[in-house]
Amino acid sequence: MKRIVGIAILGFGTVGQGVYKIIKEKHDSIMYYTNAEIDIKKILVRNFNKEYKVEIDRNLLTNNFEEILNDDAIDIIVEVTSSIDQAKDMMVMAMNKGKDIVSANKAAISKYFNELNDLARDNNLHFLHEAAVAGGIPVLKPLGDLVMENDITRVRGILNGTCNFILSKMTEEGEDYENVLKKAQELGYAEADPSSDVDGLDTLRKLRILSTMAFRQDVDENDILLEGISNIKACDIKNLAKLNRTIKLIGDAWVEDEKIKAIVQPVAVYSNSYFASVREAYNSVTVYGDMVGELKFYGAGAGMLPTANAVTNDIIDILFDRQSKVRLGEGLNRQIAKDEIKGDFYVRYNSEIISLDSFKRKKLTNESYLIKNCQYEKLKRALKKDSNSIIIRLESEDY
Amino acid sequence: MKRIVGIAILGFGTVGQGVYKIIKEKHDSIMYYTNAEIDIKKILVRNFNKEYKVEIDRNLLTNNFEEILNDDAIDIIVEVTSSIDQAKDMMVMAMNKGKDIVSANKAAISKYFNELNDLARDNNLHFLHEAAVAGGIPVLKPLGDLVMENDITRVRGILNGTCNFILSKMTEEGEDYENVLKKAQELGYAEADPSSDVDGLDTLRKLRILSTMAFRQDVDENDILLEGISNIKACDIKNLAKLNRTIKLIGDAWVEDEKIKAIVQPVAVYSNSYFASVREAYNSVTVYGDMVGELKFYGAGAGMLPTANAVTNDIIDILFDRQSKVRLGEGLNRQIAKDEIKGDFYVRYNSEIISLDSFKRKKLTNESYLIKNCQYEKLKRALKKDSNSIIIRLESEDY
Repeated sequence: MKRIVGIAILGFGTVGQGVYKIIKEKHDSIMYYTNAEIDIKKILVRNFNKEYKVEIDRNLLTNNFEEILNDDAIDIIVEVTSSIDQAKDMMVMAMNKGKDIVSANKAAISKYFNELNDLARDNNLHFLHEAAVAGGIPVLKPLGDLVMENDITRVRGILNGTCNFILSKMTEEGEDYENVLKKAQELGYAEADPSSDVDGLDTLRKLRILSTMAFRQDVDENDILLEGISNIKACDIKNLAKLNRTIKLIGDAWVEDEKIKAIVQPVAVYSNSYFASVREAYNSVTVYGDMVGELKFYGAGAGMLPTANAVTNDIIDILFDRQSKVRLGEGLNRQIAKDEIKGDFYVRYNSEIISLDSFKRKKLTNESYLIKNCQYEKLKRALKKDSNSIIIRLESEDY
Repeated sequence: MKRIVGIAILGFGTVGQGVYKIIKEKHDSIMYYTNAEIDIKKILVRNFNKEYKVEIDRNLLTNNFEEILNDDAIDIIVEVTSSIDQAKDMMVMAMNKGKDIVSANKAAISKYFNELNDLARDNNLHFLHEAAVAGGIPVLKPLGDLVMENDITRVRGILNGTCNFILSKMTEEGEDYENVLKKAQELGYAEADPSSDVDGLDTLRKLRILSTMAFRQDVDENDILLEGISNIKACDIKNLAKLNRTIKLIGDAWVEDEKIKAIVQPVAVYSNSYFASVREAYNSVTVYGDMVGELKFYGAGAGMLPTANAVTNDIIDILFDRQSKVRLGEGLNRQIAKDEIKGDFYVRYNSEIISLDSFKRKKLTNESYLIKNCQYEKLKRALKKDSNSIIIRLESEDY
């Protein structure tokens, strides 16, 4: 006999509408495989009069969360709002009512990762969020499998489509940051306020989720060093292209000397390397395990349908009652040592404002230098007075 | 309370020993996540006196399959032999006794895909075989998820580590096929009889499994055109390098005009393309879905631990009773039209034996030509008399 599973969608932006579209369009196929029908019962919105990209039954719209919370026919909550604390409150209330959760909200998940996971486990509920990291790429699920048989020693990725789009265009068309950002905003690749993307916060949140799962212990937002891309200029792209390198914003967390180090920063990768080939708004995640070796995952990191595909797959996992295994490790409490992060760096700064004479540098142009084997935090502190300066890690040969 | 799950390993070659090693080494971690203990009860071997790479309890060894079959404490059969019909018989007998199956045996799975899947479904048993395609890369599981919400229109991959190793070495070191093959055999990358690898049969079997799952209908071994790499010479590599192309053995199955086309053949991809970057014995699979877009998966396609990692993960899936969904589609009976495969090709042949005057060619060297928009089968027939001839597809710009 066919089972009917009621869901409610909280927030009806791009992702929410994509979920609606997939559930409607792929109705027969989903039913064929799962023997269940996903019934969209309610959609939580703020404004009833908005135009949507998909045709919907407007009777489903509500602005009253209580109505959803108290509807026993709603089994699964699909949380795809852009809020943080409010989203967390709604997820907590829903779990306390026995509802499973699927979310694509990386900001809320990153901030409340442990609390939400613990609550789900204590109540024997699903809390799935594949879409929160790398959009349509199935990476959290395989990662959740890999940790059981592997000591994961590194997770690394191009995790933000907006930044990758901007850097790709700057590289390929030689344009300056401001112009490309404007274009990206016109095309819908960047928000009106792009700060959480270009300052690297979005990448940091995804790295927080990835590394916490990979290393089986809490890697907090504050444990990750952060540098964005908004200070990168056309001249930096050109200077590094001469060294056969391409700039990418990379989130990277690894185990070194049994300590965990994590950083989000622009990295000058070799132009013939794999990460250089990840262009436009695409994302990629690489994972290193002691048994499986290196795995790479590539796909659309954002976009209506790819992201909604990941959300819908989480819903299907709940239909199959596939157990989630996001659980921090016991006895794996490695020290987190972000302050010890070292490397080779490209730096550009105004030498009239600051001096880096104490650093062993090699001059590249009038404004830019290469610095070898230097502590990142020390360099960052030295450049503090020049708000336009930039530090870009040089990927080493054996990276 | 901890659950104990008994397994038997059929065949104790590289993969079998890898599974043994992972289950022993990762015992605590697997138990932590699954709350179950995997107990290796028996190992089926032919020869009791063989040396193994891992230290084992020799009391586990048996050459009597009946002993395994009739042991009710054995819940899961790990079939990692190199046989075909015998392996299938053992899997059928085991399922008839109510035992779940995990296999890495692509030859047996490819040949008996439907029968084994049907039997598993009819008996409500698991039949998992992630390791049979692309070794350590988790691709069948995400593919099994993707088909529910996507119309998959293409699966494509570098699926054989031996061929990729040989082609990489020929490309990077300029050596001839025979020398590189000898080296690959010395290094253990190629078998003493390498024919199933270099003739493309191994790739074909994996493509048969991938495409059958992706297109939700049977794509048989006979439905796939086949050309191997053993005729490729150093001159072919050089000729194509001048056109900025790199040769890869690629299995490719796609939907075109609502028909399915499938072929395993050497392809001259652009040297700056993604597939060109997949070097040595690594594998990669790309999948295109109408919702998720393009996904790429990369990793070790073979090797003791990566392959065993995939096998062990299948065992863990059974511990979690995660339902397998390998089920052919209803109403998706697209015509299979391998004969209609067309393309642009590089050909090399001995013009004293045969003439290709009826084909519109562009001369490249004394022996090699480029042919545009030609039917593959027609060209193949024309070249039949020259057993040393080679056809290599030229990847088109919009591939």
